[in-house]
Amino acid sequence: MIIVIKQNPDEKQLNNLVKWVRSLGLEVHMSRGENTNIMGLIGDTSAVDIDLIRSLDIVETVKRIQEPYKNANRKFHPQDTVVSVGGYPIGGGHFQFMAGPCSVESEEQVIAIAKAVKEAGATILRGGAFKPRTSPYAFQGLGESGIQLLLEAKRETGMPIVTELMSVRHIDAFRDVDMIQIGARNMQNFELLKEVGRTDKPILLKRGLANTIQEWLMSAEYIMSEGNMNVVLCERGIRTFEPYTRNTLDLSAIPLLRDLTHLPIIVDPSHASGISKLVAPMSLAAVGAGTDGLMIEVHNNPACALCDGPQALTPEQFADVVKNVDVLLPIVHRVRDGK
Amino acid sequence: MIIVIKQNPDEKQLNNLVKWVRSLGLEVHMSRGENTNIMGLIGDTSAVDIDLIRSLDIVETVKRIQEPYKNANRKFHPQDTVVSVGGYPIGGGHFQFMAGPCSVESEEQVIAIAKAVKEAGATILRGGAFKPRTSPYAFQGLGESGIQLLLEAKRETGMPIVTELMSVRHIDAFRDVDMIQIGARNMQNFELLKEVGRTDKPILLKRGLANTIQEWLMSAEYIMSEGNMNVVLCERGIRTFEPYTRNTLDLSAIPLLRDLTHLPIIVDPSHASGISKLVAPMSLAAVGAGTDGLMIEVHNNPACALCDGPQALTPEQFADVVKNVDVLLPIVHRVRDGK
Amino acid sequence: MIIVIKQNPDEKQLNNLVKWVRSLGLEVHMSRGENTNIMGLIGDTSAVDIDLIRSLDIVETVKRIQEPYKNANRKFHPQDTVVSVGGYPIGGGHFQFMAGPCSVESEEQVIAIAKAVKEAGATILRGGAFKPRTSPYAFQGLGESGIQLLLEAKRETGMPIVTELMSVRHIDAFRDVDMIQIGARNMQNFELLKEVGRTDKPILLKRGLANTIQEWLMSAEYIMSEGNMNVVLCERGIRTFEPYTRNTLDLSAIPLLRDLTHLPIIVDPSHASGISKLVAPMSLAAVGAGTDGLMIEVHNNPACALCDGPQALTPEQFADVVKNVDVLLPIVHRVRDGK
Amino acid sequence: MIIVIKQNPDEKQLNNLVKWVRSLGLEVHMSRGENTNIMGLIGDTSAVDIDLIRSLDIVETVKRIQEPYKNANRKFHPQDTVVSVGGYPIGGGHFQFMAGPCSVESEEQVIAIAKAVKEAGATILRGGAFKPRTSPYAFQGLGESGIQLLLEAKRETGMPIVTELMSVRHIDAFRDVDMIQIGARNMQNFELLKEVGRTDKPILLKRGLANTIQEWLMSAEYIMSEGNMNVVLCERGIRTFEPYTRNTLDLSAIPLLRDLTHLPIIVDPSHASGISKLVAPMSLAAVGAGTDGLMIEVHNNPACALCDGPQALTPEQFADVVKNVDVLLPIVHRVRDGK
Repeated sequence: MIIVIKQNPDEKQLNNLVKWVRSLGLEVHMSRGENTNIMGLIGDTSAVDIDLIRSLDIVETVKRIQEPYKNANRKFHPQDTVVSVGGYPIGGGHFQFMAGPCSVESEEQVIAIAKAVKEAGATILRGGAFKPRTSPYAFQGLGESGIQLLLEAKRETGMPIVTELMSVRHIDAFRDVDMIQIGARNMQNFELLKEVGRTDKPILLKRGLANTIQEWLMSAEYIMSEGNMNVVLCERGIRTFEPYTRNTLDLSAIPLLRDLTHLPIIVDPSHASGISKLVAPMSLAAVGAGTDGLMIEVHNNPACALCDGPQALTPEQFADVVKNVDVLLPIVHRVRDGK
Repeated sequence: MIIVIKQNPDEKQLNNLVKWVRSLGLEVHMSRGENTNIMGLIGDTSAVDIDLIRSLDIVETVKRIQEPYKNANRKFHPQDTVVSVGGYPIGGGHFQFMAGPCSVESEEQVIAIAKAVKEAGATILRGGAFKPRTSPYAFQGLGESGIQLLLEAKRETGMPIVTELMSVRHIDAFRDVDMIQIGARNMQNFELLKEVGRTDKPILLKRGLANTIQEWLMSAEYIMSEGNMNVVLCERGIRTFEPYTRNTLDLSAIPLLRDLTHLPIIVDPSHASGISKLVAPMSLAAVGAGTDGLMIEVHNNPACALCDGPQALTPEQFADVVKNVDVLLPIVHRVRDGK
Repeated sequence: MIIVIKQNPDEKQLNNLVKWVRSLGLEVHMSRGENTNIMGLIGDTSAVDIDLIRSLDIVETVKRIQEPYKNANRKFHPQDTVVSVGGYPIGGGHFQFMAGPCSVESEEQVIAIAKAVKEAGATILRGGAFKPRTSPYAFQGLGESGIQLLLEAKRETGMPIVTELMSVRHIDAFRDVDMIQIGARNMQNFELLKEVGRTDKPILLKRGLANTIQEWLMSAEYIMSEGNMNVVLCERGIRTFEPYTRNTLDLSAIPLLRDLTHLPIIVDPSHASGISKLVAPMSLAAVGAGTDGLMIEVHNNPACALCDGPQALTPEQFADVVKNVDVLLPIVHRVRDGK
Repeated sequence: MIIVIKQNPDEKQLNNLVKWVRSLGLEVHMSRGENTNIMGLIGDTSAVDIDLIRSLDIVETVKRIQEPYKNANRKFHPQDTVVSVGGYPIGGGHFQFMAGPCSVESEEQVIAIAKAVKEAGATILRGGAFKPRTSPYAFQGLGESGIQLLLEAKRETGMPIVTELMSVRHIDAFRDVDMIQIGARNMQNFELLKEVGRTDKPILLKRGLANTIQEWLMSAEYIMSEGNMNVVLCERGIRTFEPYTRNTLDLSAIPLLRDLTHLPIIVDPSHASGISKLVAPMSLAAVGAGTDGLMIEVHNNPACALCDGPQALTPEQFADVVKNVDVLLPIVHRVRDGK
């Protein structure tokens, strides 16, 4: 951490600051120049409150040099983490397709889609039971009975399941779920993060709508600081000024994260744009950028003109995506395998 | 709601759509042009799933004309709502200062600050007991014992208190709190919104870091749809590309919201910038823009060089803000009154 | 265009509006509902001033249904445009690599890099002679003599050249340049757009730092409205709240633009991130998303520790990118060909 | 400037870097820690290319401590700059109203508005002759003859005039204009900035749609580095994700800029929102935040239902704004005076 001290500081306050920094177990290096005095803090500064220092009268600016996350930091864990979801590994060269319906609606719907996506190459079944909706008047999902339907599909197909948890109150219903998803709107619901950090299940942590990469890693750190190291990051689009798409998929986050963290990273191209014809090209793009997996919405009801979500593919379209991705996987040194 | 139909649509699908729209109790008006067909939906469209319609093959775009919120909508409630917090009214021409420490630390600290801000003109005491922190390694607040200290200060000074609730798990501890704050990071924690919607306490709903005005009103709608109409909106800055301030205070949201909603609107200039010397000018600016109140952080410990938050004012600086605001209040037709 | 009229409008003003709209050669369809009156404008509305209508007392909102661009619009030109740069086609299935140094520095530098990137597979030489720099104290490029050096490299290698024009004052120096680049900061320098619209050279139009897709197409329209149809769009990253990268590459713009326009689209992954190790993965990602070409910075001076730009590849790294892209091109139905 | 060196750097490269830094006339201070080595550069670093250093293999990050602008920097010019426009001072406690039509349309229009706004309290006449329009099909302004009409109004009323310059080609037509406006879209048109830097006229420099405060000051620096110190900054709204307003007025920029620069700062509340009913509250807010002036669009043609811009006030509404602002000016220590 670098503290830039104002010109001609009050020496007593400066001494107080130096003493306080040393009391935290840190070394202090001072460089005094004509116009600027720079104080370097050497040691583990992850618990230092940067806002507190910035508030001091004698301080011009403070800059953090070290990352404030430890468990998620590649510097301290150089090897890729591999997270296994019901026997299917993600990360470290292992790639998985997660697919399924946006919302779970009925037993026959979810089983039909599960069979279709398994046939096409998906290994993990996704489906929404508790649905975060902007409007209180919109359908909020089937809740616990939706999870029962997903478990039915798991029994039928053998696919492990991933579904979103929205409140600490519902956690008991997730006992048999294979992977718990934390949605974008809950990325900084710190109480929920601590709660899933106390489970031993793999956690899929989606990036918040307007959260920086560092904040995302700090949310992973919340989970990991409670003991659960099985975190998979999921990029799903960030909010920008562009009105054409709902969100802008930030694929450059993938190679950036590779340097910063050892955790696996997957991409959800369905939610990012909210437009189904973008799913195929953005899936291929995500693989090119180095993702460890793709989470894709698939629906199965072409007859009902009003049921298909705008961002969902048909099973046939999904199978095409898998086929194209398979050509690209060797170039990016990844294999689809497991169980 | 306007649905733009593609050129030469499949007539059967078009008929299906028209039938479905009518089944929702809405009227359909069709305008057919050379290049475009426009379908107008007349009636209450707040429960219509716009994404679902957008997904149809025959649809080019859909645009919502009516606002999707009802309880919060000024169209249906032309009179300003006045929310009373322990006898102090907010909205409808009534203005209040909420002030207090960022974090509650000790009985003497919170009582000293409470007395000082009351003396200067504040009527509602704010203070953090449960603190949302980006890092799991940062101080998370005193929790329930922090609330006890606030209640102690309330007994001592007679000031009603407002403090942040972060989890449905903690709600019992808020029994004697006068106003519950929902923080920016929980603005779309829908389970928490429903929970406080089932209480009868005034709710202070902060705007999310990157949430639109419409999403903010939909979150108010979540609370109100459960029966609690005592919602006060609080602008506290949005996320932009500008790195100088932590957030950019969006004061134009105030006159915009006046048209859209009857709910009171206050401003928190302390958190927006994260820089204490911006608090005074931005407080005056907020009053000029038409705010119904200000929420300001005040600390009391000039001796301890390292305790003052970078965004907090001293009691003297706070008193100056009150004095300047008082000159401006008559121009914007507001009075500080109550009890 | 849809005009939503307020409840109980002044009928005289409404009549005025209808008359005025008809005087523009447009048809008017009115749908009157209980709470809302919707006026549909049928015909070519591209010249209608939407802000002017929005300002009327009787108008609640106005929404444009038709795109305001014509020459660039795929609806009126369904076939892909193919732009030829010195015999190398871009678009319509044809793919090109543009490569070269960030700034032209000397004859030997630019010729050495030109030979190296040609050997690796690039067909068009890029290089900066006039450099847009945030600071007036930074090196502003060699200017006209830089263009002479590029022309020297063209003579030596046979590669057509592309370089940035920053002012109408310099246009004479671009007589022998094969493709003129309009930089991101000049995307809405409308006088410059008109000027290059009066030439017959291919124009590379970079997207502005914070410009929407529609504004970008309107800037293409400025060039095309002067008669020059040879416009190639170049995505190079947009400004977001994320501080890790300089800009966020918006690859979803590519499939979106495919629907909206017939113009070719290329990607510059070097400038977007400003980090050289992101160039290789983001190049592959851009090809997956469907780009018609890549523009990549390459430097040649590993000996001089201080000359290499942070975003430039070595010729060897560039050759690796070409090799990987070549595997992916057949999947996205593109070929590298020409001359 | 702080350079953070990677762990175990190549000592030869490190020596090269130290030598190169010293060759620029800077002192180097090294702090070596267990995990991090920090190099502090002491001296005038404004001409150091930060991207170049960042590109070195041995460098982890670089952070600029000193601002890269000099002429605009308050550190080197502690006194407020006062810019006089035709005898009316702006800055240093002096406040002016600039008002007039969005576009100049006819002699009688501009003279009528000029008289009305002068009567209400404006001292400087604004009006658009060259209009930056997103669409090539929209009205581009009267051009040079528009400037003649403004000069006519100046002769008639004695008010100095300010109008926008869009191209170096038009500069001769601005000979008798009192203040040249550089619009938001040209904030980084560096050739244009240098050109007006070579004049002796006051320059009104609007902030770009998505430009940081530092980039804005660097553009002021471009003008000042050519010798023209009469720069007035104008905040007019930045681009955010919020769709309700065209732009979000960033009033916190005003107190921030006060610390960073000695240049006067004014606010244009008309363009920011694009909604006329926001002009009055946001004008008052801007004064509260400390602006040195307001630039407001006023129209005069209530009879013609289709002529009034959505963001323009009537002369009566403008007079009300002046009246309210006058109550607030003493609180913020400003006076309207001059000539």
